Amino acid sequence: MIEIAIIGYGYWGPNLVRNFVATKGCNVHTVVDFRQERLDNIKRNHPTVNTTKSTDEVFKNSKIDAIVIATPVFTHFELAQKALKNNKHILLEKPITNSITKAKILIELANKQQKVLMVDHTFLYTGVVQKMKKMIDSGEIGKVQYFDSTRINLGLFQSDVNVLWDLAPHDISILNFLKNEKPHSIQATGISHTNNKIENIAYLTVNYTSDFIAHFNCSWSSPVKIRMLLVGGDKKMIVFNDLEPTEKIKVYDTGYSHTTDEEKNKILVDYRVGDIYIPKVENTEALAGMANDFISAILQQTTPISNYNSGLEVIRILEAAQQSIKSNGKEIIL
Amino acid sequence: MIEIAIIGYGYWGPNLVRNFVATKGCNVHTVVDFRQERLDNIKRNHPTVNTTKSTDEVFKNSKIDAIVIATPVFTHFELAQKALKNNKHILLEKPITNSITKAKILIELANKQQKVLMVDHTFLYTGVVQKMKKMIDSGEIGKVQYFDSTRINLGLFQSDVNVLWDLAPHDISILNFLKNEKPHSIQATGISHTNNKIENIAYLTVNYTSDFIAHFNCSWSSPVKIRMLLVGGDKKMIVFNDLEPTEKIKVYDTGYSHTTDEEKNKILVDYRVGDIYIPKVENTEALAGMANDFISAILQQTTPISNYNSGLEVIRILEAAQQSIKSNGKEIIL
Amino acid sequence: MIEIAIIGYGYWGPNLVRNFVATKGCNVHTVVDFRQERLDNIKRNHPTVNTTKSTDEVFKNSKIDAIVIATPVFTHFELAQKALKNNKHILLEKPITNSITKAKILIELANKQQKVLMVDHTFLYTGVVQKMKKMIDSGEIGKVQYFDSTRINLGLFQSDVNVLWDLAPHDISILNFLKNEKPHSIQATGISHTNNKIENIAYLTVNYTSDFIAHFNCSWSSPVKIRMLLVGGDKKMIVFNDLEPTEKIKVYDTGYSHTTDEEKNKILVDYRVGDIYIPKVENTEALAGMANDFISAILQQTTPISNYNSGLEVIRILEAAQQSIKSNGKEIIL
Amino acid sequence: MIEIAIIGYGYWGPNLVRNFVATKGCNVHTVVDFRQERLDNIKRNHPTVNTTKSTDEVFKNSKIDAIVIATPVFTHFELAQKALKNNKHILLEKPITNSITKAKILIELANKQQKVLMVDHTFLYTGVVQKMKKMIDSGEIGKVQYFDSTRINLGLFQSDVNVLWDLAPHDISILNFLKNEKPHSIQATGISHTNNKIENIAYLTVNYTSDFIAHFNCSWSSPVKIRMLLVGGDKKMIVFNDLEPTEKIKVYDTGYSHTTDEEKNKILVDYRVGDIYIPKVENTEALAGMANDFISAILQQTTPISNYNSGLEVIRILEAAQQSIKSNGKEIIL
Repeated sequence: MIEIAIIGYGYWGPNLVRNFVATKGCNVHTVVDFRQERLDNIKRNHPTVNTTKSTDEVFKNSKIDAIVIATPVFTHFELAQKALKNNKHILLEKPITNSITKAKILIELANKQQKVLMVDHTFLYTGVVQKMKKMIDSGEIGKVQYFDSTRINLGLFQSDVNVLWDLAPHDISILNFLKNEKPHSIQATGISHTNNKIENIAYLTVNYTSDFIAHFNCSWSSPVKIRMLLVGGDKKMIVFNDLEPTEKIKVYDTGYSHTTDEEKNKILVDYRVGDIYIPKVENTEALAGMANDFISAILQQTTPISNYNSGLEVIRILEAAQQSIKSNGKEIIL
Repeated sequence: MIEIAIIGYGYWGPNLVRNFVATKGCNVHTVVDFRQERLDNIKRNHPTVNTTKSTDEVFKNSKIDAIVIATPVFTHFELAQKALKNNKHILLEKPITNSITKAKILIELANKQQKVLMVDHTFLYTGVVQKMKKMIDSGEIGKVQYFDSTRINLGLFQSDVNVLWDLAPHDISILNFLKNEKPHSIQATGISHTNNKIENIAYLTVNYTSDFIAHFNCSWSSPVKIRMLLVGGDKKMIVFNDLEPTEKIKVYDTGYSHTTDEEKNKILVDYRVGDIYIPKVENTEALAGMANDFISAILQQTTPISNYNSGLEVIRILEAAQQSIKSNGKEIIL
Repeated sequence: MIEIAIIGYGYWGPNLVRNFVATKGCNVHTVVDFRQERLDNIKRNHPTVNTTKSTDEVFKNSKIDAIVIATPVFTHFELAQKALKNNKHILLEKPITNSITKAKILIELANKQQKVLMVDHTFLYTGVVQKMKKMIDSGEIGKVQYFDSTRINLGLFQSDVNVLWDLAPHDISILNFLKNEKPHSIQATGISHTNNKIENIAYLTVNYTSDFIAHFNCSWSSPVKIRMLLVGGDKKMIVFNDLEPTEKIKVYDTGYSHTTDEEKNKILVDYRVGDIYIPKVENTEALAGMANDFISAILQQTTPISNYNSGLEVIRILEAAQQSIKSNGKEIIL
Repeated sequence: MIEIAIIGYGYWGPNLVRNFVATKGCNVHTVVDFRQERLDNIKRNHPTVNTTKSTDEVFKNSKIDAIVIATPVFTHFELAQKALKNNKHILLEKPITNSITKAKILIELANKQQKVLMVDHTFLYTGVVQKMKKMIDSGEIGKVQYFDSTRINLGLFQSDVNVLWDLAPHDISILNFLKNEKPHSIQATGISHTNNKIENIAYLTVNYTSDFIAHFNCSWSSPVKIRMLLVGGDKKMIVFNDLEPTEKIKVYDTGYSHTTDEEKNKILVDYRVGDIYIPKVENTEALAGMANDFISAILQQTTPISNYNSGLEVIRILEAAQQSIKSNGKEIIL
């Protein structure tokens, strides 16, 4: 039985507790938060779980095997480092850390300590993303040609990270999961409407050496909420609208191919518009799969889907994006 | 009575003929097209209109006062130049030409010849854009902070211009019409999925010295059709969905403002979410207003809404965008 | 070559002329309308078509083989009767007449004169209805269990017929086309908000001896426009949303079946929710198919899809519905 | 402090417990359910609440002041009667009972015992319904002319009541709350696709002596979920779409009025299509307002919004509807 402590009982904490409580092979031992009212809340809902305001208490407790860190990103590195040094397995909320350097130190340390270091990119465990992965891997979609993500709403302005660090990890982790190609470079632009110069609107293009392209539109300042992802292949295209309660993905049997007319020196493009298909997708809670993957990784030494490399590749793009925005959109080679 | 000739009777030609036939103060004298079946079509539908395959015939005809050019963009310059030299007023379909240099030569020539030179950015004459202009000018929207356009569908791949030249003129002309600020620089990225290296997907950011930003997402390769424009002010925000048959614009009484908490060195952002309002917008045909504006400009020496400066500023951005794409997304100062 | 005259050049007339002009085997000889401006309109758009204000002129003209009647329904009987007596084939706009008695007289006369008598239920020629027919006939949908139609908008109040006579013929003709079962009885309720007691809102249930049911919701007084039809089978269900520009029908691989638990004396219902499928449907103009069917019926003595029996069965339900409304919703056995 | 017991901890029970726990002036003393696993669930989530399988235990407990009954409708009468006889205030889940006779006995008993008898028509406490009520009462909507409700989805077939008893109480309670006019008669039709003859699809018209009409379309057999209510006035019309996450009501400044043209003996209808307005509506939980109203009714002898008359009028229509369906849609005078 893996004994777990969870640090941070804010917006996401209750979901983590609920799912780990229901996961086989583990027990939620302690929840840490520095706010008394959050600890009271835990006690009301989960009377058997211990509570404390001290992170050291869980680091030092030898009964605790694994620690889930659900605190603001700027605290991830220090907490995870201490936990690893105290021989704990680690699950970090996304993004893994706020810099590649720090992420690499953690990864090295985890390897040295022979502990699991995992990051929670929950979307990778959704039925929708799993279904898209299968369709792409089976060749049904054909050669994947573009990835176009829009994730905008009237959102909480964060005070430590910009809108890309806040919203794009979801879609970047999906991109990297679906597309087996190393990005070549990125460009990003954005704007801040506050004095702290933290962008609340930003646009990111990820370039590849092939003719694949990915683009992300992120905003905390839109009056409408949009969560839409287009994945275009040369055989079929997928539209993932996460706001649809049940019909989340539509698969378009649509495509185009081109031939060169040698005589006229012209490109001829053939269009094909066919049926549309809305596959039924499992709506089991993604977080349950993530929790299970973490415990399996500990117990059976498997590599989790949302592993530290996945976490590292996401912030590699985010860090470059920030650098690009601050250099007026300069192309950053990855 | 202004006598008009229309060169080019393709996709847009019938709409032009129909609207100029209905415009007071002018007469459609001749339509030019090099395809016999198009001329037959004209004869069937408008028996009193002359037809010819010769552009020279209309240039040389001293009875013809004005020429409407609705041919592919690469032919605009030569046709318009000849027409101006023959003392004709000119209306060009968007975009005005395929280069700034050529546009400037035409503008200079038009001024010298004291002829009207106008470009047809039809959207500027829609009830929706007129309504947005009024809301912005009256201060109802507050300080305009961003402009975000998505214009994607499974579209005809053009063989002479990329997707930005094809689709973005609509939204760029709207942007310039609504926002009284000169853009500072642009960045663009894109990809071609054909051998001719003409981009079928492209993204464009327009930067300003203020904290305003504009972004355009254009694609011929999307399985879904989207025509959406967000205009965000610090008092209200507008969503323009051109695919809605009647409820095209929604005005959100929504905004955010920030204050600086000196003690905690933090930005505090105040959100406000209020009512939404869908104003009734005149649905008179925009092209009728455009045709009327052209005739008024000739008869009464007024400056049309969609004048040559409007046309020039649109291609200034497009030309820079193309340069940026070809330089791996380099920032181009305008 | 069948020579055609069209009586009535109102809202639908131009569509009829345009389609018959394009139909092989026939020629549009004359259009009749009593309004000079409508005849001028015809002359402008179709200079070779004759125009007249006299219906007798076309009845008496022995060169004319067939007459299309697109006038208000209360004039159908008299015009069609005269035309048949003058040995003309007849196409009537829906509904066939405003009473069963009159329809039967016309049918008898057409048979006696050996002329085609057809009614234009255009929807039967749409790709969508043809597709639904195929799915039902092939057994893909299973046993069809219900039909639920909503056709509401802010519509023109008619002064001679109520909202059911105006809007329901479309859906009733579809119902009869799809479902091979004779209706047993109907009930209808409705309300008039004008002094003339003509209902602007009405509801109609059609009952069958089997466990199939059909329901129609029609209104001229809705602020929103809805054109939706549900067809439920025990294997699959179809949703037809006519306002969708391209994705008009969705096929749900969804159903339920029940078993009886003898011990507990309970009904157990099994649900099945599966994939959704949006078939690509031909979007050729339905009216072209209708026009072609009429000409084929004349030339090759075929029975048209939208034949007089189809027209008669539609008004059998409408007449009973009116009787039911006027009797406070009494069940009317058909 | 009002001590409360809740009988029935099924689908709705947890919501009731959560809201009464948060309501001032009361304490959740005991929850009754005959299923051990439901009692275990209560214990986990609310350790301080007593649990029992015995209803008598709470009836006999003199510390308990009020009982909330959230059990299947066929059990309502017996439980409520016992509770009232034991001097408890009563809150019943909708519908109040399965017959008018039983409801009247309970009402009489409540009055005799001087206890509160209330039914939970939760919708009456939503911000949306409260907003609609204000708009109607203020005259903004004008004379209310129709009410059209569609509540369909692929729903759980109930084994004791038909689809109207299951789904229509929501909309009927809203209708009665909004419209101050006594219904005159009803007609209902429906169909059962199971052997138990319980209708899974049903249609209900409610008639009034004025020219107002109400219609309800209820189904457990629709592949799509629709929760839509139209309320039409002669000044404005309201569309309430309960599936919209935030923009639940749209107010259309749309209407029509008619005049009689004496000479031509014709009705002339004037249409007006204006702006649309989406008011911001409080999204506080309706159930909290309901719970508070119940406690206020006990403590301050106020009449709750969702009082026993409201409950009685709802089942008056339901009982008549059932009678109508079983008599082939006969009009039932209320």
